[in-house]
Amino acid sequence: MDQRRRAVLLLSGGLDSYTAGAMAREQGYDLYALTVSYGQRHAVELAAARRVARTLGVIDHFFQRIDLRAWGGSALTADAIVPKGRRHISREIPVTYVPARNTIFLSLALGLAEARRSFDIYIGVNAIDYSGYPDCRSNFIRAFEKTARLATKAGVEGVGEFRIHTPLIRMTKAKIIREGARLGCNYALTWSCYDPQPAGPKSYKPCGRCDSCILRAKGFREAGIADPSL
Amino acid sequence: MDQRRRAVLLLSGGLDSYTAGAMAREQGYDLYALTVSYGQRHAVELAAARRVARTLGVIDHFFQRIDLRAWGGSALTADAIVPKGRRHISREIPVTYVPARNTIFLSLALGLAEARRSFDIYIGVNAIDYSGYPDCRSNFIRAFEKTARLATKAGVEGVGEFRIHTPLIRMTKAKIIREGARLGCNYALTWSCYDPQPAGPKSYKPCGRCDSCILRAKGFREAGIADPSL
Repeated sequence: MDQRRRAVLLLSGGLDSYTAGAMAREQGYDLYALTVSYGQRHAVELAAARRVARTLGVIDHFFQRIDLRAWGGSALTADAIVPKGRRHISREIPVTYVPARNTIFLSLALGLAEARRSFDIYIGVNAIDYSGYPDCRSNFIRAFEKTARLATKAGVEGVGEFRIHTPLIRMTKAKIIREGARLGCNYALTWSCYDPQPAGPKSYKPCGRCDSCILRAKGFREAGIADPSL
Repeated sequence: MDQRRRAVLLLSGGLDSYTAGAMAREQGYDLYALTVSYGQRHAVELAAARRVARTLGVIDHFFQRIDLRAWGGSALTADAIVPKGRRHISREIPVTYVPARNTIFLSLALGLAEARRSFDIYIGVNAIDYSGYPDCRSNFIRAFEKTARLATKAGVEGVGEFRIHTPLIRMTKAKIIREGARLGCNYALTWSCYDPQPAGPKSYKPCGRCDSCILRAKGFREAGIADPSL
């Protein structure tokens, strides 16, 4: 029997899921990473996910590709322009919301977790410095966790009780970054921007103006740490 | 404003989802069909799904391909032999259980439903003449429905309240078949077998011995109707 437990980590390539993974490692888990590509415009994220998985020393890294462009419903999966500027980070759910994204991600993670007899799933959702997506909030996570226990053979047979870990959910972005820095995270490996700008052959730079860039910059500024990716 | 409402139908190509779709049509819904291919051994189902979608006159038919073979955990996604014979249809959850399958299917259906501003999802799960899968039971469905309302922009903003319709859940297979016959379903279009047997170039016949074949045969027999696919 291994001394360390095993968990599934939903890994996007951004700094939140990296930090969640580093926290899981510190909490005694070895990780299966799962990266879901959903036809998002920022495919450059996937390369970042590979780098982060490597540095986290994951047991295995799974990729799933689903095509959420097929039915659209989000600026992130459309060819439309991603909105820019601070004005629209508000109490409204923004156009970058992708219908049911975290429900889809967590259900895939649940399948992987059950297949590997792991009962712990880490997801780097955050309900403080975030875009206002409903599927980043605690009541959604708790409802999904209950569903997971009823949905699965392992849950029903009492083999294990699925837990969705959201270590970042009540942290500010600055606190997340300080925690990651403490754990030795190299944020130069990560990618956050929703709207990558060409910066040469096969290279991109962040736009600096989308929700995600703005929240990242605010986080580093408030943490008093320089963003190593800039 | 349309007089008929719109719903999403999870359509496998088997007789249950076809019947659920025919019932949805009778209940006043036009349908978006969603067929999920998950690396199952019975890809012949997909051709059946196309035929059924056509006969149901769906507005649009979406396909998603996910690779649940990547992590395995089921006889349906492995190259292992599908178990045969009546003996193993018991109170135990069988090896054909696919980890988190209906959670994954419903979460994809939820994404499509929200993107199309439809709040009704039909799924042909059945908890009477079924294989004992946990994600076919009512308490799982109700938990998912609650999760769906918390997960989505539409649910949180009160635009609509997602409902998961399971019209077959308390019906015997015989009753499902009689209901389908009443609604004019042509079950010759459907495919149920988990383990298709080659029957010529590009043609297959059902094995007659897997869970799904056995439940289907029992249903037609008890309904007093001949299976038109045999």
